Amino acid sequence: MARRWKFWGWGYEGEGLTAEEERSLLRLYAAQLDMAPGERPAPPKVGDIALRPPRVEAPRALAGICTSEPYERLLHSYGKSYPEAVRIFARDFENAPDLVARPRSDAEVLAAFEWADHAGVAVIPFGGGSSVVGGVEPAVGAGFDATISLDLKGLDKVLEIDRTSRAARIQGGILGPALEAALKPHGLTLRHFPQSFEFSTLGGWIATRSGGHFATLYNHIDDLVESLRMVTPSGVLETRRLPGSGAGPSPDRLLIGSEGALGVITEAWMRLQERPTFKATVAIGFRDFQAGARAVRAIGQAGLYPSNLRLLDPLESEINGAGDGSEALLVLGFESADHPVDPWLARALELVRDHGGRAHQDTRAAEAWRTAFIRMPYLREIQVPAGIIADTFESAITWDRFEAFHDQVKTATAGAIEEATGRPGLVSCRFTHVYPDGPAPYFTFHARGREGALIEQWRHVKQAASDAVIEGGGTITHHHAVGRDHMPWYQRQRPALFGEALAAAKRALDPAGIMNPGVLVPT
Amino acid sequence: MARRWKFWGWGYEGEGLTAEEERSLLRLYAAQLDMAPGERPAPPKVGDIALRPPRVEAPRALAGICTSEPYERLLHSYGKSYPEAVRIFARDFENAPDLVARPRSDAEVLAAFEWADHAGVAVIPFGGGSSVVGGVEPAVGAGFDATISLDLKGLDKVLEIDRTSRAARIQGGILGPALEAALKPHGLTLRHFPQSFEFSTLGGWIATRSGGHFATLYNHIDDLVESLRMVTPSGVLETRRLPGSGAGPSPDRLLIGSEGALGVITEAWMRLQERPTFKATVAIGFRDFQAGARAVRAIGQAGLYPSNLRLLDPLESEINGAGDGSEALLVLGFESADHPVDPWLARALELVRDHGGRAHQDTRAAEAWRTAFIRMPYLREIQVPAGIIADTFESAITWDRFEAFHDQVKTATAGAIEEATGRPGLVSCRFTHVYPDGPAPYFTFHARGREGALIEQWRHVKQAASDAVIEGGGTITHHHAVGRDHMPWYQRQRPALFGEALAAAKRALDPAGIMNPGVLVPT
Repeated sequence: MARRWKFWGWGYEGEGLTAEEERSLLRLYAAQLDMAPGERPAPPKVGDIALRPPRVEAPRALAGICTSEPYERLLHSYGKSYPEAVRIFARDFENAPDLVARPRSDAEVLAAFEWADHAGVAVIPFGGGSSVVGGVEPAVGAGFDATISLDLKGLDKVLEIDRTSRAARIQGGILGPALEAALKPHGLTLRHFPQSFEFSTLGGWIATRSGGHFATLYNHIDDLVESLRMVTPSGVLETRRLPGSGAGPSPDRLLIGSEGALGVITEAWMRLQERPTFKATVAIGFRDFQAGARAVRAIGQAGLYPSNLRLLDPLESEINGAGDGSEALLVLGFESADHPVDPWLARALELVRDHGGRAHQDTRAAEAWRTAFIRMPYLREIQVPAGIIADTFESAITWDRFEAFHDQVKTATAGAIEEATGRPGLVSCRFTHVYPDGPAPYFTFHARGREGALIEQWRHVKQAASDAVIEGGGTITHHHAVGRDHMPWYQRQRPALFGEALAAAKRALDPAGIMNPGVLVPT
Repeated sequence: MARRWKFWGWGYEGEGLTAEEERSLLRLYAAQLDMAPGERPAPPKVGDIALRPPRVEAPRALAGICTSEPYERLLHSYGKSYPEAVRIFARDFENAPDLVARPRSDAEVLAAFEWADHAGVAVIPFGGGSSVVGGVEPAVGAGFDATISLDLKGLDKVLEIDRTSRAARIQGGILGPALEAALKPHGLTLRHFPQSFEFSTLGGWIATRSGGHFATLYNHIDDLVESLRMVTPSGVLETRRLPGSGAGPSPDRLLIGSEGALGVITEAWMRLQERPTFKATVAIGFRDFQAGARAVRAIGQAGLYPSNLRLLDPLESEINGAGDGSEALLVLGFESADHPVDPWLARALELVRDHGGRAHQDTRAAEAWRTAFIRMPYLREIQVPAGIIADTFESAITWDRFEAFHDQVKTATAGAIEEATGRPGLVSCRFTHVYPDGPAPYFTFHARGREGALIEQWRHVKQAASDAVIEGGGTITHHHAVGRDHMPWYQRQRPALFGEALAAAKRALDPAGIMNPGVLVPT
């Protein structure tokens, strides 16, 4: 029997943190947040939850791809955000979709849209469901008679490989590991590894402008898209496969980042890499985060394009077992399938030294960070029942404003934690991606919450942090997407007239407004 | 008295090809196209042309920025396309704008839109007027009572420089040389040098997705735009200054390439470079174009990012005095403000040798090419009166289809020349830009035309070439833009539903449809 995904946590049933990982995490929270170990509620079982009966039945034509089976409805009720996890542990599934559909072709997607259009049903596209911003919850308000979660994972093939151009035509519902496994025999790789890699899909990455492996240059998925095929309620839209074009505004760029509000991405031609054979990684210590940031700026502006340029502040590296909290840690890496990377690394290390960085003699800190990074999505399964409020948010800001922005956002977040919980929490920062004109800072906060008030406390902190991000000139999201959670700040950030242009474009592609209502375009 | 721009040719009055350049060009045409030297008509003078009286008068509020002076109306009648040059020499200015406005502020742009909206006047944004695709001709059909050419060159300042992030806020109407002159004291440069550099504007580059200096990586202006300010008939739209973002579809990317059909770009924050201090250029010979193309592919896929990677076929290099027609020429260059480029160049030269390339002992061929490239826009002033049909068109195509595409496009173009003129012409090709997944081939054709039939003959060739580009899977334009001339093929290329989305977006920003009617969105 195939392994099943947890509907209440990360990954497969029966997998999660090890007992040792869990103990060490609780020790950390005890030390840092003064947490006493207590009874922890068990995760929910399918049988615990009383689901509302489906308000709609699948039409005969879609019966073969639709289900209202409780496990499937639960699995498609939520993404992986903090408040969603709290509601899961509280057995609150009030917005569970009435149906889950799993189309295997564009025709089936179109048929689902046609039916939903007429039946007054909202359609929520669902890839891996790893959204941390409320992007897949069927919370669509009173304007619809029912909701259907459209799971795209039946569209999971690599259809065509073009070795010469290094590109492949790939279906949108394929998961990261299957995608890489299909490319590997050809010596090719997409080399796009978001933290959700194992449980997220190509179409989801494109729809949310996911941030991947590369810290510089090809970081967002945007640049890796050669062309797209999107099924919308108005029909199929397929862009021309081109390495570059200057023929009007880019059609791809209107669809990339559309978060299921215009249609679903069923196929894409993706630009690939050869598998790297030359690699070098160095861990580097800096006196403090801002000293490290100045080195990162110098390297990011030097035209060296390191694959890794991730800077962790002292607390961030300590929490993740990659340091003792006495220094900021920079993980600097180069890779190439074509040439040894020594000259590139040597120059970057000169810049590191110019800015007071000290290379470690080994890469243990870098490896510890890498392991922690991959295991992170499991932490929520411990944090929520333990009453820890923990979340991350991310932005991007130009270098001239970065230092003040960093301080203001940290201060606002820390202040809101104290207001909400009555005691100090932890706020740390790292860079996930770096552009020549500025970094993408990624913030993590931890606080000791109060059972029964976790969401309300979380919201107070999230609100203050998001306000500080927008008031400081940053973007409300660099690669987590907008979803439903970021809408108030997205509406402050995007130009009002662009909002009107996007709403008009949506009316052309989705006249009845059934696609992921409430996301990107206000209902 | 300030130098005046020619209304009938390229650049300033009194400047152009030298007598020697002209002689050598005519010798070339005599040899290659069997042209006998004959009487050549003189270029038009302002007094030669009987302009239709303006059909509209500037309102009092705009009187200070409007003129109906004949020279200004003539200067704003045309861009720099081949058929436009023919009509200029034929003294045909039937679509001359009724008025020319030169706003000096966003408020004046808005005032012009408001008036035009009510008066039924079409607005044609005009930067340097270097469009080669009919982008600035006020040919708007019968749906408007009059036309106004909106010259943005009054908005010509660098407003703010951010040395830390390496970015600057710059007005859209600034010309290339003034922009670089303002950045130079700060050690910065945009490093975007389209062939039209001297006589085109930043706003024009962005509105047309211009292709610049860099053969790889940062080739289109798109990636150099940090944020934009656009004045539309519906109001001002200003995007947030960010190094990167994942908050919904990119607002910038909807405006970049909008060719004046949505509004005018009055300001942009642009990403800058430091001025390069390390440079290396090598000229390399290949047996033929396809051998050179395979080397270019290897270099383009190696992650080396040369600044120059321009491949000329044997005829292209011969015509431009950069070779004797016996070999294809590759101009390979690296530049950096940060580090010596030797390791980069050394690896690229290994790839060159692997593919049978032979490095020249000197860079004379590369220099000859560079000079020819800069002088090219003046050639039309000789070609048209001499009865030569000469034009260029460009595309981009993935590597897997490139060889067949190249052959089919050349064959179709050469065949159409024979059909139209009864004798063979010249068709040559070069690469202007290179992506990892494919090149941007740029074709040039020359034919001996017949006085009085030049436009008709040109159209026959252009039609066949454009059909071959679209049928072969390419883009109708890589960086020349769509304008009015490419509309039939643009409409075949872009997905129909994207056309509807774009039209809907236009209705939001330009409800009366006054902005550059006929361009991008069919009227």
